[in-house]
Amino acid sequence: MGRWEPDARGRLERAALELYGERGFEQTTVAEIAGRAGLTERTFFRHFADKREVLFAGSTVLRDRIVGAVAGAPASATPIDAIAAGLDAVAGVFSLEQREHARQRHGVIAANAELRERELIKMASYSAALADALRKRGVGEPAASLTAEIGIAVVRIAFERWLDEANDRDYRELLRESLHELRAVTAAE
Amino acid sequence: MGRWEPDARGRLERAALELYGERGFEQTTVAEIAGRAGLTERTFFRHFADKREVLFAGSTVLRDRIVGAVAGAPASATPIDAIAAGLDAVAGVFSLEQREHARQRHGVIAANAELRERELIKMASYSAALADALRKRGVGEPAASLTAEIGIAVVRIAFERWLDEANDRDYRELLRESLHELRAVTAAE
Repeated sequence: MGRWEPDARGRLERAALELYGERGFEQTTVAEIAGRAGLTERTFFRHFADKREVLFAGSTVLRDRIVGAVAGAPASATPIDAIAAGLDAVAGVFSLEQREHARQRHGVIAANAELRERELIKMASYSAALADALRKRGVGEPAASLTAEIGIAVVRIAFERWLDEANDRDYRELLRESLHELRAVTAAE
Repeated sequence: MGRWEPDARGRLERAALELYGERGFEQTTVAEIAGRAGLTERTFFRHFADKREVLFAGSTVLRDRIVGAVAGAPASATPIDAIAAGLDAVAGVFSLEQREHARQRHGVIAANAELRERELIKMASYSAALADALRKRGVGEPAASLTAEIGIAVVRIAFERWLDEANDRDYRELLRESLHELRAVTAAE
């Protein structure tokens, strides 16, 4: 890994988000990101495949942790409870300290069509991974795919509310509220 | 509207889908679509703004019909029942005769990143319109947005199953099954 750079990855991420926000994703080069972080391009490429991956690098790790928690839910858990356990397992990542970073990232992605598509593909891959985890628990189709899609809908609502500047709600609490709301709106009369 | 062309719109749609499938969306010109349909470019532009809109022209009409049916659901209907009434109101559009057309369209969109994004934006606009229709019925947030997202998830599952060559199920029946499944997977123990 060459010479030790204290928190090189974090510095690159912060520098990239700043530059994407200031001048747009398209207009920013890897050389500029490395320069802003006080590091070399070589160091950048030790951490990220390209400038797009700075925005998506964490997502595979997150997905694997969610899937692991779905798999590890008690055998007696219903499909939606297994998904809830998975989503809850990573809720701690979205702390209030992370929120400004998440907001910046959200703004950069919203401003660029290619990144919006990449984000939608990411969510679709989460949904597919959740459905797969449920099938491995013995859940049939279409229940597995449907529950996975519903899980993604729940996350989307909770996440949007969490990003909202108008409140300082805890993400885990918003997630649980969103799941609770789900049961309320789908309950028969 | 100039000289009468019997079913000009339908002929243009079929010609466009054929050509998009044969040589790709990018590689097809409006002149070629008009030529294949035995019509002029001028006629094409009387019906569609551009070659992309051939694939999305029906979606606003469909969305407005769904929203109308949500608004017209009995005041006593729960949010999810109002959404179900909206989705059911347009289910007749997806007849078995329409399925080959829908499959072709699905294949063309899947093969092109710009079209995939346009389709995802269309689904997001459906979700926003459904949430708005629910708020007008007095449903609060986040219940309105969540129920709308769930409605879209239900449609997506039903639609994918309907497109599946392995069965010849009726779309309305698949939609109802998907809604039924939704209640089953979200029910408390």
